[in-house]
Amino acid sequence: MAIVQVSIVPIGTKTTSLSKYVARCVEIVQNQKSVAFRLTPMGTVLEGDLDKILSVVRKMHESAFGEGVQRVVTIINIDDRRDKKATMESKMSSVESKLRRAKRNPG
Amino acid sequence: MAIVQVSIVPIGTKTTSLSKYVARCVEIVQNQKSVAFRLTPMGTVLEGDLDKILSVVRKMHESAFGEGVQRVVTIINIDDRRDKKATMESKMSSVESKLRRAKRNPG
Amino acid sequence: MAIVQVSIVPIGTKTTSLSKYVARCVEIVQNQKSVAFRLTPMGTVLEGDLDKILSVVRKMHESAFGEGVQRVVTIINIDDRRDKKATMESKMSSVESKLRRAKRNPG
Amino acid sequence: MAIVQVSIVPIGTKTTSLSKYVARCVEIVQNQKSVAFRLTPMGTVLEGDLDKILSVVRKMHESAFGEGVQRVVTIINIDDRRDKKATMESKMSSVESKLRRAKRNPG
Repeated sequence: MAIVQVSIVPIGTKTTSLSKYVARCVEIVQNQKSVAFRLTPMGTVLEGDLDKILSVVRKMHESAFGEGVQRVVTIINIDDRRDKKATMESKMSSVESKLRRAKRNPG
Repeated sequence: MAIVQVSIVPIGTKTTSLSKYVARCVEIVQNQKSVAFRLTPMGTVLEGDLDKILSVVRKMHESAFGEGVQRVVTIINIDDRRDKKATMESKMSSVESKLRRAKRNPG
Repeated sequence: MAIVQVSIVPIGTKTTSLSKYVARCVEIVQNQKSVAFRLTPMGTVLEGDLDKILSVVRKMHESAFGEGVQRVVTIINIDDRRDKKATMESKMSSVESKLRRAKRNPG
Repeated sequence: MAIVQVSIVPIGTKTTSLSKYVARCVEIVQNQKSVAFRLTPMGTVLEGDLDKILSVVRKMHESAFGEGVQRVVTIINIDDRRDKKATMESKMSSVESKLRRAKRNPG
């Protein structure tokens, strides 16, 4: 199981607004069942089998072409852990529990 | 106003767990007022004045050294928009409103 | 035709040296014909058909597991241009020709 | 001493060509002495004192605004090693020497 962040950046869009391209990418993730996701301010985070995720990422990248877009920069960060099952949820709660402990035992 | 994602990756940590390093980074952001933040499964997203954010990022990067860590890879993505005030919140709600509209008017 | 940079970062490696993992990744690219590549100080840059590149990247990511490595962070940046054929070479020479012109016509 | 890759991506540029923005970034690095650099097909790699590098990166990011560009995405990857002096050159030659050794002793 892997966690992957993807950010799609269309180039030469005339406008600075990219939200319509991001929305299309989110629709692609919503229209399939195998990969869980979470929208963040800087990209979409996917969770599941790495090959299934990469197949979704490939479709997201492709979706940005069209309506005059002829160049797309896509940034992908994979976090793939095989010693234990890590989810988006477990990664964040692990940090949060360490923050609580540090607050109780400062210094 | 800029939005910046930062991910700190210490190298040669012996263990695969990185949450304690992330927790320290989050404490650094919590202990200052000028930059807003949100923890995501793949990094910390900061919002505010770009120079203030970069100063916080510099401290986060530095915090990962110590306890035997001698090499740190830090990934920073800046999204800096000057034509209108974009916040973490506004970026996400802009995508979500386009998703709702697409649902009402499919095709 | 796309240009893709990939950096493989194994986590929990005991040592700070990552060159043996990078070398294995380079061997994977060398052992196939469809994708051209160039080693840079911060990753490997691949050039060719995007699907073929992503298949090579998938193998490079996988190669970092083993010998105790149980977590791998992989950073992938895709630059995919469809309006004209862009190569690693043409991207760099385009920048260099603009630099020469700027030197001749300063200001 | 750190090695840092930076890629500047202006958004809403009307054209898909970004080389003129990259050329300006390279001029900024050329016009100072403290930071060494190398142009690659996917960005500029800087080598030197981390704070000096980040100050150059800040100027490169800023240079992309202007001529109608109102949004810039900048991708920065820091590789900061404190156990030994690593240069762009030494990182690459370390990989290359491992590749030669693997060729002499296959399997």
